[in-house]
Amino acid sequence: MTGTLRGLGLGPGDPELVTLKALRLLRASPVVAYPAPLGGTSFARRIVARFLSPAQREIVISVPMEQARFPAQSVYDEAARRLAVELEAGRDVAMLCQGDPFFYGSFMYLFARLAERFVVEVVPGVSSLAACAAAAQSPLAARLDTLLVLPASLSEQQLLCRLAEADAVAIIKLGRHFAKVKAVLDRLGLAAAARYVEHASLASERVLPLDAVRTEDVPYFSMILLHRRGVELR
Amino acid sequence: MTGTLRGLGLGPGDPELVTLKALRLLRASPVVAYPAPLGGTSFARRIVARFLSPAQREIVISVPMEQARFPAQSVYDEAARRLAVELEAGRDVAMLCQGDPFFYGSFMYLFARLAERFVVEVVPGVSSLAACAAAAQSPLAARLDTLLVLPASLSEQQLLCRLAEADAVAIIKLGRHFAKVKAVLDRLGLAAAARYVEHASLASERVLPLDAVRTEDVPYFSMILLHRRGVELR
Repeated sequence: MTGTLRGLGLGPGDPELVTLKALRLLRASPVVAYPAPLGGTSFARRIVARFLSPAQREIVISVPMEQARFPAQSVYDEAARRLAVELEAGRDVAMLCQGDPFFYGSFMYLFARLAERFVVEVVPGVSSLAACAAAAQSPLAARLDTLLVLPASLSEQQLLCRLAEADAVAIIKLGRHFAKVKAVLDRLGLAAAARYVEHASLASERVLPLDAVRTEDVPYFSMILLHRRGVELR
Repeated sequence: MTGTLRGLGLGPGDPELVTLKALRLLRASPVVAYPAPLGGTSFARRIVARFLSPAQREIVISVPMEQARFPAQSVYDEAARRLAVELEAGRDVAMLCQGDPFFYGSFMYLFARLAERFVVEVVPGVSSLAACAAAAQSPLAARLDTLLVLPASLSEQQLLCRLAEADAVAIIKLGRHFAKVKAVLDRLGLAAAARYVEHASLASERVLPLDAVRTEDVPYFSMILLHRRGVELR
């Protein structure tokens, strides 16, 4: 009997936004794996640190810092080999995933490598999208609205094209791309209505109009929310 | 001191996909409100029925069946008045929301009517989008992918236009629109790669290829997930 790999969506950062299911499966898992920047601490582990037990074995998947955004795929080849050893030995592995495992998460790379050989269960989590909308007190989309999620790392031209069509838009993973994104929104006349959110659900959470954001301070875990016409709510 | 209105995202249906925060705030709330079809049972209430206490007062917001999709706004005017009475009297109100409150949820209509007069807190929840992707074992989007959410009630022409651009697509709230959506996907050559998911996270959950879906059986709580090129995971 091989073990089961579980991708546990842990939500955006507040430990209280963990689901009952993720907590139960986390506590029952003999092996807990998570990504961490080389020499740094794991954000996913930090969310559930209070729920871990010393009896659980931890596997750190180190992701070299300079490649932290799109790490070399060899990182995941090697990580999949390490997790496969546990699974082959019949031990269940809980992989900690901030947000939702299948919404721009690195768990997908392990899923692609292991789902054919082992039983893999995905436990959905609260996404950063939902958390940012809640923080900004900003409804995302209603009725016939289309909702478009754009990674901020798209080119200026791609952003311009894609923004032309959607009603509601979330531009995610801003980091060093903030100035480019803001310029595009200015050009389209969409900047004034947009809201900036960073670190949603954490103590460091901030919600700001775009003009109040200092370009050099924008973290990776941030997004811009906007709605072309405003969500129709009456 | 007026009460606080809390929109509690309860996730897609499995009671275990409720967050610790939603559960804590639900249990602490003297008044619990939820939408229900006229003469029917409330899906949101059903998710957390096991956590409710007889000491909690329940307010049912009846939504006439024939208008269940886009109910007349007078329904929410009246519901807001009833909740305002509680809040004015200093009682906190927990409004139960299936999925995430700000992702195509009816809580938004109450938020729009009450947020200026009362403190409103939004607790994000696991969305149907995340739950369907987990059920289908189908990663939504990675890296530079754009992700587009389309309500199935858009016209054929609107669907055709919008589908031309996105990488990953979720077409939500299928119900009686399934045949129209499938025809559009067939025309664009996207049907074969698409997956159909209904009632994600519930015992009645089903994941099917589009050809296996019986048009007349498609419930409102269903969606189609597809990715134009397949998510790049290696």
